[in-house]
Amino acid sequence: MDQNEILALIKRDAVDIFSYEGLRERLGSGKPLKIKLGADPSRPDLHLGHSVVLKKLRLLQDTGHEIIFVIGDFTGMIGDPSGRNKTRPPLTFEQTRENAQSYFEQVTKILDPEKTRITYNSEWLGKLSFADVLALAGKYTLAGILERDDFKNRYLTQQPIGLHELFYPLMQGYDSVALNADIEVGGTDQTFNLLVGRALQKDYGQTPQEVITFPLLPGLDGIEKMSKSLGNYIGVSEAADAMFEKCMRVPDMVLGDYFRLTTDIAPETYLPLMEQDMHQAHFVFAREIITLYHGTPAVEEAERRYHAIAAGSAPEHMELLVIGQESVTILELLKLAGFASSNSEARRLIVGKGIKFNGELIRDTDLTVRKNGVLSRGKNKFRRVVFERSE
Amino acid sequence: MDQNEILALIKRDAVDIFSYEGLRERLGSGKPLKIKLGADPSRPDLHLGHSVVLKKLRLLQDTGHEIIFVIGDFTGMIGDPSGRNKTRPPLTFEQTRENAQSYFEQVTKILDPEKTRITYNSEWLGKLSFADVLALAGKYTLAGILERDDFKNRYLTQQPIGLHELFYPLMQGYDSVALNADIEVGGTDQTFNLLVGRALQKDYGQTPQEVITFPLLPGLDGIEKMSKSLGNYIGVSEAADAMFEKCMRVPDMVLGDYFRLTTDIAPETYLPLMEQDMHQAHFVFAREIITLYHGTPAVEEAERRYHAIAAGSAPEHMELLVIGQESVTILELLKLAGFASSNSEARRLIVGKGIKFNGELIRDTDLTVRKNGVLSRGKNKFRRVVFERSE
Repeated sequence: MDQNEILALIKRDAVDIFSYEGLRERLGSGKPLKIKLGADPSRPDLHLGHSVVLKKLRLLQDTGHEIIFVIGDFTGMIGDPSGRNKTRPPLTFEQTRENAQSYFEQVTKILDPEKTRITYNSEWLGKLSFADVLALAGKYTLAGILERDDFKNRYLTQQPIGLHELFYPLMQGYDSVALNADIEVGGTDQTFNLLVGRALQKDYGQTPQEVITFPLLPGLDGIEKMSKSLGNYIGVSEAADAMFEKCMRVPDMVLGDYFRLTTDIAPETYLPLMEQDMHQAHFVFAREIITLYHGTPAVEEAERRYHAIAAGSAPEHMELLVIGQESVTILELLKLAGFASSNSEARRLIVGKGIKFNGELIRDTDLTVRKNGVLSRGKNKFRRVVFERSE
Repeated sequence: MDQNEILALIKRDAVDIFSYEGLRERLGSGKPLKIKLGADPSRPDLHLGHSVVLKKLRLLQDTGHEIIFVIGDFTGMIGDPSGRNKTRPPLTFEQTRENAQSYFEQVTKILDPEKTRITYNSEWLGKLSFADVLALAGKYTLAGILERDDFKNRYLTQQPIGLHELFYPLMQGYDSVALNADIEVGGTDQTFNLLVGRALQKDYGQTPQEVITFPLLPGLDGIEKMSKSLGNYIGVSEAADAMFEKCMRVPDMVLGDYFRLTTDIAPETYLPLMEQDMHQAHFVFAREIITLYHGTPAVEEAERRYHAIAAGSAPEHMELLVIGQESVTILELLKLAGFASSNSEARRLIVGKGIKFNGELIRDTDLTVRKNGVLSRGKNKFRRVVFERSE
């Protein structure tokens, strides 16, 4: 592919480009460009949603450009100074490096490792003095920062916004200044932050980076964006059989988005296929994804396992559920597994013949479980139950 | 005066005390306390409005406590990073030290220099890293900071608020942490900032300072608070005759406030006096202020000059008006002097026989002025006009 074909492909799939003219000129200049992509070091698990951007970056690498990952370790190490967010403890220096290493291994399933550089924003943000910070803050007004959707909504609905949070867009923007980035890419949820980078580069006397935003891939629920915290994701490092099973569960109405954004299959191929046989289209999609992330040899076995599971077997890889006591009632177990949210819901599942343990249908709602085994709900929800008794 | 008498006097004149119980306990403890007062290094000229607080601090010094001035040189040296406020260029290190020296000389007209310490907040704020700044910012929410009156008003009326400005209350509050202050005093316009100090000390594990706010002295216009920028002030370093004349111009309705807040004369003395003869009350007030700031021997001469000026002479000290051209029309001159805001207003003043030049009444509205001299409007507005022609 040459620069013009890549540009056309970017234009086809991007939601916004600021500015298209600037991007066209830079790509046409023949100079190797620095393309920035931010990464959250507290969530090193990549999923198919990330691949939307990564696949475009791979094309840009193949024509000589460099991808620079900015690991946001500076904020990661600070954690939440307000103490409100208990679920995000500060990371140690070592954790940020381990997570970045894991991140690198995952992105290089798509990207060329030779043209992929990892940087840490603590390298420059850690050196800023209070005076530098005030100078940075002085580039923005409160009203300007509150234009960011989530700030605006939280302010209007009177949810607390820590003063430190107002700095996060500025820090991300300053990363572009520190790197003198030519292009920054991200999901549409990052548009505001990417444009802050563009504005700050101008303030600091640099040529503003070109900004490209890509659509957010819907999750397996077909509604929310794909995200680890929502549990609606297909991880790029998941085992082949688990991945296959999840691909088969992509809702019909968003399968076209999945084809377009996460595979190289052309619309001329997948659109007629989806029209003729949606189930077969899912197989084509699943095989493609397994090929991309596990290689062609893994496809056959993953598909075999998928059919076996569909026929009633437990999958090879499944989530572990560790029980720290001697025994547990079946109702409690169903709640721990996340299959039911109340005793009455758990009872309904058993009565409705939806629950098996080691392949045997459970009929007794008063059952007590004492041994390791596979708990299943319906045909595609499994937990490996392991008792770890304290001595 | 003992601690109880001082406490009673503070309670009488203060607007708010947070908390009265805490203040009573600390004053009663017998320990020497650290009393903090913030100072703006860009405006080293003290006026009678400042004396309201300083007079109370003097009483506290006399019973063994130490006054610590915090010169806000850190922000002074930064200036305005947004570049919006062109009128406040950043100060150099030397300027902040010179201004602080001038500040010290002025406050020690009231305070005991032995128990007055000058500190510079760049000493601790300059050492904070970005991580420290975020930790500080994380102690406050946006909504909490926007409770400050002027932020709220500016936000509601859509005037820009630089993001850096949100830090100013936190910086002032952090000064209390750095000093581990026992008490902070200020005008009522500082209430929010002083309470931030109280809150931050708690966050940083210190006993929160007691906060005392005093009323703002009205200016010579009787309406706005006394302030240099509004031109309605009596400076503590002004020449005795200028000071005397200004004291005589204090509006009747606020003279009681001036007596109470800026002199040691008891209400039993000034209240009946004001009732009997307001003009004589002004003389008593003016003499007291000249005695306080220039000593008793200066009173007689200042009063003599005042009477002479009232009879038509020009005062010894007056504002200079430098004209950088060969000649100027009288209408233009009146506008430059600030006596008129338009040609038509200037004409009315001349026609109404209100304008003199070197003591001679001006009758010609088309007059051109070419020589140095004293321009006056009525009995108490004077400008020394000096032509400085370029060669």
